[in-house]
Amino acid sequence: MLSVTGRGWGCTSASCCSWARSLSNFNSSSTHANSSSHSQQSGGLRPSVWGLLGVAAAAGGVAFSSSAVADARTKELKAAAAASKPAAQAALQQQLKGSDGLPVFTAEEVAQHRTPKDRVWVTYKDGVYDVTDFVAQHPGGAAKIMLAAGGSVEPFWGLYQQHMKQEVRDILAQYRIGSLKGGAAAVAPTEDPYRNEPRRHPALIVRSDKPFNGETPAELLVASPVTPNDMFFVRHHLPVPVIDNDKFTVTVEGAGMRSLQLSVQQLQQNFKKAQVAATVQCTGNRRTEMKAAPAPGGSGAQIKGLDWEVGAISNAEWGGVLLRDVLLAAGLQPGDASVQHIHLIGLDTDMTGTPYAASIPIDKALSEAGDVLLAWEMNGQPIPADHGGPLRVVVPGTTGARSVKWIGRIVASADECQGHWQQKDYKAFSPGTDWDAIDWSAAPAIQEMPVVSAICEPAEGAELSTYDGEVTIKGYAWSGGGRDIIRVDVSADGGKTWSPAKLSKHPHSRPSRAWAWTLYEATLPLPEGFKGQLQLACKATDQSYNTQPEDVSSIWNIRGLVNNAWHKVNVSVVE
Amino acid sequence: MLSVTGRGWGCTSASCCSWARSLSNFNSSSTHANSSSHSQQSGGLRPSVWGLLGVAAAAGGVAFSSSAVADARTKELKAAAAASKPAAQAALQQQLKGSDGLPVFTAEEVAQHRTPKDRVWVTYKDGVYDVTDFVAQHPGGAAKIMLAAGGSVEPFWGLYQQHMKQEVRDILAQYRIGSLKGGAAAVAPTEDPYRNEPRRHPALIVRSDKPFNGETPAELLVASPVTPNDMFFVRHHLPVPVIDNDKFTVTVEGAGMRSLQLSVQQLQQNFKKAQVAATVQCTGNRRTEMKAAPAPGGSGAQIKGLDWEVGAISNAEWGGVLLRDVLLAAGLQPGDASVQHIHLIGLDTDMTGTPYAASIPIDKALSEAGDVLLAWEMNGQPIPADHGGPLRVVVPGTTGARSVKWIGRIVASADECQGHWQQKDYKAFSPGTDWDAIDWSAAPAIQEMPVVSAICEPAEGAELSTYDGEVTIKGYAWSGGGRDIIRVDVSADGGKTWSPAKLSKHPHSRPSRAWAWTLYEATLPLPEGFKGQLQLACKATDQSYNTQPEDVSSIWNIRGLVNNAWHKVNVSVVE
Repeated sequence: MLSVTGRGWGCTSASCCSWARSLSNFNSSSTHANSSSHSQQSGGLRPSVWGLLGVAAAAGGVAFSSSAVADARTKELKAAAAASKPAAQAALQQQLKGSDGLPVFTAEEVAQHRTPKDRVWVTYKDGVYDVTDFVAQHPGGAAKIMLAAGGSVEPFWGLYQQHMKQEVRDILAQYRIGSLKGGAAAVAPTEDPYRNEPRRHPALIVRSDKPFNGETPAELLVASPVTPNDMFFVRHHLPVPVIDNDKFTVTVEGAGMRSLQLSVQQLQQNFKKAQVAATVQCTGNRRTEMKAAPAPGGSGAQIKGLDWEVGAISNAEWGGVLLRDVLLAAGLQPGDASVQHIHLIGLDTDMTGTPYAASIPIDKALSEAGDVLLAWEMNGQPIPADHGGPLRVVVPGTTGARSVKWIGRIVASADECQGHWQQKDYKAFSPGTDWDAIDWSAAPAIQEMPVVSAICEPAEGAELSTYDGEVTIKGYAWSGGGRDIIRVDVSADGGKTWSPAKLSKHPHSRPSRAWAWTLYEATLPLPEGFKGQLQLACKATDQSYNTQPEDVSSIWNIRGLVNNAWHKVNVSVVE
Repeated sequence: MLSVTGRGWGCTSASCCSWARSLSNFNSSSTHANSSSHSQQSGGLRPSVWGLLGVAAAAGGVAFSSSAVADARTKELKAAAAASKPAAQAALQQQLKGSDGLPVFTAEEVAQHRTPKDRVWVTYKDGVYDVTDFVAQHPGGAAKIMLAAGGSVEPFWGLYQQHMKQEVRDILAQYRIGSLKGGAAAVAPTEDPYRNEPRRHPALIVRSDKPFNGETPAELLVASPVTPNDMFFVRHHLPVPVIDNDKFTVTVEGAGMRSLQLSVQQLQQNFKKAQVAATVQCTGNRRTEMKAAPAPGGSGAQIKGLDWEVGAISNAEWGGVLLRDVLLAAGLQPGDASVQHIHLIGLDTDMTGTPYAASIPIDKALSEAGDVLLAWEMNGQPIPADHGGPLRVVVPGTTGARSVKWIGRIVASADECQGHWQQKDYKAFSPGTDWDAIDWSAAPAIQEMPVVSAICEPAEGAELSTYDGEVTIKGYAWSGGGRDIIRVDVSADGGKTWSPAKLSKHPHSRPSRAWAWTLYEATLPLPEGFKGQLQLACKATDQSYNTQPEDVSSIWNIRGLVNNAWHKVNVSVVE
């Protein structure tokens, strides 16, 4: 669910997010997927600290205590003043003072300030900022922000454009120590990394622009067993990569295996085609409901992440080859205990070239019944760029974060992917665990998802007529691990009584490999003569008889993940 | 959960069950799975009728109280003393005295001494001990030692190995009152199908006598990662079959396969041994909680089934061979679409000869990661008769009803088992579905179980001291399908706030094949200065992030199955 990179798998830079993070903390109650990811990934600033900073900042007093720098600079100025003749002295003053009266620094000077010892400077437009004292408090950890040290923050802000607002600039302004000689032009112009994004259908409900995240309108989800490609929800962590399909290959490799470079055409010609109907769901689907609930125990802890409602889920028929077949062709030996995980590495990268990456357990990857695909086809069409074309992974029954798009490299490994999104993001904790208490190693990376369902019609706040005397409820249900949905119960009294709905399954669905969602529909009578508010509710049961908890409070978690509480929709019945 | 057979798979007569039914109903006031099964399977007797029968039995006097035995023994002695000549008297004394000159008691006599009033007797090896006066001094607490009352201390000493030393044996020796008669027990009437039942440890909490169903005391569940064989819960549907282990074979067959008859020795010699730690849980575990809740919507519908509390679950290390290997040896072709199910047919039969039978999906049976065993070993010992010896099936991650004991025949088939326990019993329905509305074909047979947990200590109604200032909660958690338990949350305020517990796993546990339960422990502070009632609660999360519903009401079902609501225990805090 996060839109920033981390220090994970081969990640060398992520300072990009430090500002967003600090801002999100200073920034009232609006949510920032990025900020959360950062405070998680390296156990950074405590909320309380942020609160203090916020107060201090608001009071105008976060100190900018780059006193060492100021002292050195002052000494330099004094030395010059003492030693030089008046004319030279004036020239020096001219050189040292910008129009705002602050010193002027060259890009080279800024570039020398890359350590706490030397002080940590960054630039933004023509401003120079000493963020040394901010480094240690950085929610994403000192190392992250240090990646921007000595240079401009703009490339990172370009990547995560939620920085592009006045509150962020206001915070930064407090750390200003001077101006950049030559102005903004002194640093290389930065191209917008999002300049090549594909065109999207305006019906998608945008949850963030850059990276793009958009959900499918609820009523469209239940309109068809498969979601049209243009309407399929989009969840990106980074810019969509520009790929020359004619030159595209995926690399498959690992210890004891031969390295294969395979084009899509080679996959098509050398392997048996497989087709799988599979639902992809974002781990943070329905986060808004969890965000709306207070943190249990009154801690005031805030959930961070994109504001997904019920539409961060879609279903498609995927065509490709089994990952299993390709791994075996590359020489992977089933039962080889030295291979426990398959790493899936995308071609989408951050500013440092670090790609999006994840891994799945070998049992899933190699299982004949696992149906993990390298897919080039989506609902009978080549997979569009927004959905991972020319080639993506589809890991059925598993959270969408492991179905890596634009797959570039597949590596068999003894170890789990150590990347940010595997190790320090897609994990959920006890309701009582706040940001400062998170031990990321204490929870496994989310793979299979729990059973979930949602009401897509009627919508929240809909008006029903007493004349109709009934309400028709439509929605979806799905469970991870291929566990079939065996029942969906619906209620028109907030869950006091339940009736089973009529289920509609994909024709190729089968128990234990039920990768596609189940759509449902039920018509319930309205209470005789009733006018007023009704709460509709739904809950599903899967073939392992797992079902959904009543309320988000017991599954509340600081990342707002895996919300599978009963879905409740309030409607009113009017004359 | 039912203890009778039905008209299902190969069953030619429903009358088969009359024995089990009548026996369990006349047999004290404990609940009767049988009655429920019968009213289901053929619209048979209504609960009210059974209730009347139960009342009649109770009113008619459940015979054979312990005092009756004691009286008989005394009368025998007195009669002998009064009436006999010296020689006969001496012979009687000879019979009554062991070689050490102490009296000889039968196991039945010992079993009647289970209360301070009747005196508390236990056995150790061939000794009989009256430990009534020691109970209050027992370092582990009076409640613990009382679990052994009327039976052997050895299973407990196996569990708590600090007893295995001379000083403990010396203490016990002070309480010796006699020796245990080793001979055969009184012969039951030949027409009683339960005449050959094995002897059971009296600590098992009996839920029905015939067929025998007994649960493990909660505090013993958490005392050890594996449950001692004598303490392992027992769930029978029929009498324990009498098997000549020397002549025993299991038959393996199916269309296109050769028929194999294999002895345990042949299995041992021709297949690779496999060892699996796996928890077995009854589908009706924790039914009492569901029974205590009213039917949703005020229908007044009554749940039927045995009154299991939290102890219809146990864990053991099983040794045997993979069912997969045996099926392949018999010529089963993986991928053969004509084989979808493996039937598992026990040697336990009803009066008509219809055996207990179930089936599991072929994917589970053939999966290398499925770990389905034909097992002859239980915690390093030959499997006792009560647990399916000489050979049983263990289907890890699946409800206990599919782990068929005394396995006699294994058949590969296109179709699911059509027997009663597969088709018309172990299925759960919507809370609104009453007996009249059940369409048995509308739900799949329960195979994998949902995530569950329970509090084993403290017990309901326990008194905590304000002086302690904290409460330690111990229990188990488990999920079906091999899904590992990733977290157990506990609460001391009825679920308003939660804290993660410390987990303890079987050393061979691994994700996705976590067949053994997870034990947990957590110590929570008591509210400062608080006195009064507290509700403790627990809930577990498995690796697919499924968790437990808050309350039984939303999962309430007429069979009282798969109760995985939060487990709640009420305690009081006193000065």
